[in-house]
Amino acid sequence: ICEHPLDQLMLAGWVCLTLCLSAGLSAAKLLKSHGLNPVVLEARERVGGRTFTVRNKETKWVDLGGAYIGPTQNRILRLAKEYNIKTYKVNEQENLVHYVNGKSYPFKGSFPPMWNPFVLMDFINLWRTIDEMGKEIPREAPWRAPHAEEWDHMTMQQLFEKICWTSTVRNFGKLFVNVNVTSEPHEVSALWFLWYVKQCGGTMRIFSTSNGGQERKFVGGSGQISECMAKELGDGVKLQSPVYRIDQTGDMVVVETLDKQTYMAKYVIVATPPGLNLKMHFNPELPPLRNQLIHRVPMGSVIKCMVYYKENFWRKKGYCGSMVIEEEGAPIGLTLDDTKPDGSVPAIMGFILARKCRKLSGLSKKERLKMICEIYSRVLGSDEALHPVHYEEKNWCEEEYSGGCYTAYFPPGILTQYGRVLREPVGRLYFAGTETATEWSGYMEGAVQAGERAAREVRAPAMGKIHQSQIWQTEPQSVEVPALPFVTTFWERNLPSVGGFLKFMGVSTFLSAAAAAGLLAYKKGLLPRC
Amino acid sequence: ICEHPLDQLMLAGWVCLTLCLSAGLSAAKLLKSHGLNPVVLEARERVGGRTFTVRNKETKWVDLGGAYIGPTQNRILRLAKEYNIKTYKVNEQENLVHYVNGKSYPFKGSFPPMWNPFVLMDFINLWRTIDEMGKEIPREAPWRAPHAEEWDHMTMQQLFEKICWTSTVRNFGKLFVNVNVTSEPHEVSALWFLWYVKQCGGTMRIFSTSNGGQERKFVGGSGQISECMAKELGDGVKLQSPVYRIDQTGDMVVVETLDKQTYMAKYVIVATPPGLNLKMHFNPELPPLRNQLIHRVPMGSVIKCMVYYKENFWRKKGYCGSMVIEEEGAPIGLTLDDTKPDGSVPAIMGFILARKCRKLSGLSKKERLKMICEIYSRVLGSDEALHPVHYEEKNWCEEEYSGGCYTAYFPPGILTQYGRVLREPVGRLYFAGTETATEWSGYMEGAVQAGERAAREVRAPAMGKIHQSQIWQTEPQSVEVPALPFVTTFWERNLPSVGGFLKFMGVSTFLSAAAAAGLLAYKKGLLPRC
Repeated sequence: ICEHPLDQLMLAGWVCLTLCLSAGLSAAKLLKSHGLNPVVLEARERVGGRTFTVRNKETKWVDLGGAYIGPTQNRILRLAKEYNIKTYKVNEQENLVHYVNGKSYPFKGSFPPMWNPFVLMDFINLWRTIDEMGKEIPREAPWRAPHAEEWDHMTMQQLFEKICWTSTVRNFGKLFVNVNVTSEPHEVSALWFLWYVKQCGGTMRIFSTSNGGQERKFVGGSGQISECMAKELGDGVKLQSPVYRIDQTGDMVVVETLDKQTYMAKYVIVATPPGLNLKMHFNPELPPLRNQLIHRVPMGSVIKCMVYYKENFWRKKGYCGSMVIEEEGAPIGLTLDDTKPDGSVPAIMGFILARKCRKLSGLSKKERLKMICEIYSRVLGSDEALHPVHYEEKNWCEEEYSGGCYTAYFPPGILTQYGRVLREPVGRLYFAGTETATEWSGYMEGAVQAGERAAREVRAPAMGKIHQSQIWQTEPQSVEVPALPFVTTFWERNLPSVGGFLKFMGVSTFLSAAAAAGLLAYKKGLLPRC
Repeated sequence: ICEHPLDQLMLAGWVCLTLCLSAGLSAAKLLKSHGLNPVVLEARERVGGRTFTVRNKETKWVDLGGAYIGPTQNRILRLAKEYNIKTYKVNEQENLVHYVNGKSYPFKGSFPPMWNPFVLMDFINLWRTIDEMGKEIPREAPWRAPHAEEWDHMTMQQLFEKICWTSTVRNFGKLFVNVNVTSEPHEVSALWFLWYVKQCGGTMRIFSTSNGGQERKFVGGSGQISECMAKELGDGVKLQSPVYRIDQTGDMVVVETLDKQTYMAKYVIVATPPGLNLKMHFNPELPPLRNQLIHRVPMGSVIKCMVYYKENFWRKKGYCGSMVIEEEGAPIGLTLDDTKPDGSVPAIMGFILARKCRKLSGLSKKERLKMICEIYSRVLGSDEALHPVHYEEKNWCEEEYSGGCYTAYFPPGILTQYGRVLREPVGRLYFAGTETATEWSGYMEGAVQAGERAAREVRAPAMGKIHQSQIWQTEPQSVEVPALPFVTTFWERNLPSVGGFLKFMGVSTFLSAAAAAGLLAYKKGLLPRC
């Protein structure tokens, strides 16, 4: 057992996991830049958490975890720029394709178009309603929204049942939940999901490739950012060091790791998903609400699947590689082109989401690949999809130190009862991890926001280095990746909902009928002519 | 580090916690009776888990955890009999009282009577519907129920909205969920809750004092059962030994505890609530579904509060001490008399449940006592309630090694997707704990069923000592505590629901109107008289 008194601070736990790659490391980086000497304890044999870049000859490099970045994600873009990691745009030049009812419909834009006018009204109304409800929700305290309790007691499935008139739109809403939070509409609190979409910038920003969360990737893989930070921190980063015990009964916080090391520090930033706090035994015990919170926020379920082909056959057919697939029997819900920016290593990235992930976890890798190629072949109308040259996949549900991906979700009732304690310090423990962020929580961006905020929390009231008001900082916009506003059309703003339309029709039919009856009565001389 | 090779088996983890007192110990007891030499690793400094008997001069003894037993709980009754621990009946001689809309209504029986005929119809229909839905659900595999998915995608709140016509009954339904599973109707899956009530024997059995789950207590406290088993197992029981690591990559399973001991065994029974498996680091990692299940089954929220008085004043006023309290501002939802069987140490036991538990966790013990006495005083109409002589309470939410009480609940969508792996062995790990039981899961009885079943699982396919078909065993009925059937009245069986009644009224009004019109037409000579 080695006792290792530290200057100031230690980041306990595997540095927050996937997507959250950077919470622990970016906290440490910020502290180091202020002359402190933090130690990062990482559970795995690698840094990066829920980001995971694999290098091999077949793929050159491939991101099997968090990969996408886009405009408004300015913190992660700043970090990448500092390390000279370039971004490139995910291919969206040709048509996207929406597969539904067994047919493929090519389209351009963020959402598939709807042709039936009732469905269109319903579709536009859904996004408008989600965004308008989001406006009522404070991003830093969703439990304070005016309708917080009512919405938190509802699942997203219930909300869809209330808002949507058509099954077409309800089904698309389900896919929207599956894709964004790797869980099912009936599993998540409506308040939480509305908050989640809001703090990503709304339905358009979260779901779009161009000008949205999936606009870009990092050349060489997202894992480089953690790797660069880890390099900078040198032997301050301890790999294969899962923390199993945190004791803050003495003058220093004592932290023990599975490799039988003991570390001591003045402060500890716990940068794991909330549920993984459970891997640690605390002395003294956590306060009651935190002790229960960490049992109530499960991680989503996803397998990220990359299929490699000899040629980029879909582009030749006029498809960019983005597929939105609505089909219960299909394993994949959403795909994006994953070909390298120079056109080499043609590949399609696809997600197996939520219920499908749990169902298909039991199959072999080979069986999953077969199912995936079959649906790609049907959607793209090409036999070439049946002949992959390579396959990579990562089932995040099997990761003990992530618990799932992309992020934690809140089941109904939890956010209003326990949300307050999500990032409330416990003695000398501070909490980071993308789940504690208020902008792009669930993404790499959220991890950086959370890590830097937690580092400033330690420096501020705790160490008195900075003022309380400086803990939360805004980030200047990236020059290279600026955000464009989303312009809504007149119809998107003003088209009525189906309900509104029917009411309008009802009223106008009644008025027309009344007018016609009046006219008739007048003509027939039944009304007094004065 | 001490290496300690064992004969056969070790029970890892704090022996399953509250209520679940006996899963680990009773597994060990059964194995020892077959000549094996099990070791029980208990996280706490005491055995008993979610049962917890405190002895002091003010109370003599008091059960601050699981305490109640009743007919059909034959396994725990068998154990108690073996150790010569007597039971006594919870006082229910005088009137119970139902407090609602600010008034007290004395009553007799299991459920408060309803006087408004519409409310009565609705009330009877609710219990009948819950019990009838329960009949469709296999107790050992609720995910195989014909409507499993539909019901699992719904919360109990949604089910109440579907079944109940009156807010009176919906509100009582909420209390029923609060009391039985210490969580909120909008938090729990309807499928899971219906299963839970069913495997306890139905709405009457679970909620009743006489002839139900709260009929009796153990003289001297429920903790004695674990204490007796622990005594029998001698130094096979290791206290203060939280397990943080389980490695089954070698010939023997290697288990490490926080006190830096290493144990080795051929098989391990993990007898904790599912969520507390997370306190252990597994090598190899758990399979994906189990890895995610254990993040998805939180423990309920409850503070058990015992208020002591100089005199048993409520009995003099004709009240037995059972109060069913519906009042948002009241801390307590349900009380029972907790006076000793000889009439000494007058006391009232009350539960602070679910949302109220989370809200009141932040108060001081003194503040909670004040609120409790105030509501008792109002409900019982007596100032004597304002003058307690002693107070004991236990907030189970603060227990790191329970996570909450009484038991784990399943949020919507989880039982159908993950229920299958709840007690599926993982290599040489077997799973006990009351949550894995199929009769009285959530109770002490379930803990014994689960522990003995897991012990037989180890002996059967694993060790070849008994046949697969002998793993699950039924238990003969207790002679001392026999179960009486619940007789339903003609009206309970046949009174229509409000919906059914309105439909009937609609049809009969229509028929009467039609008949009257026909008669009139006939009289007026408008119908041909042939």
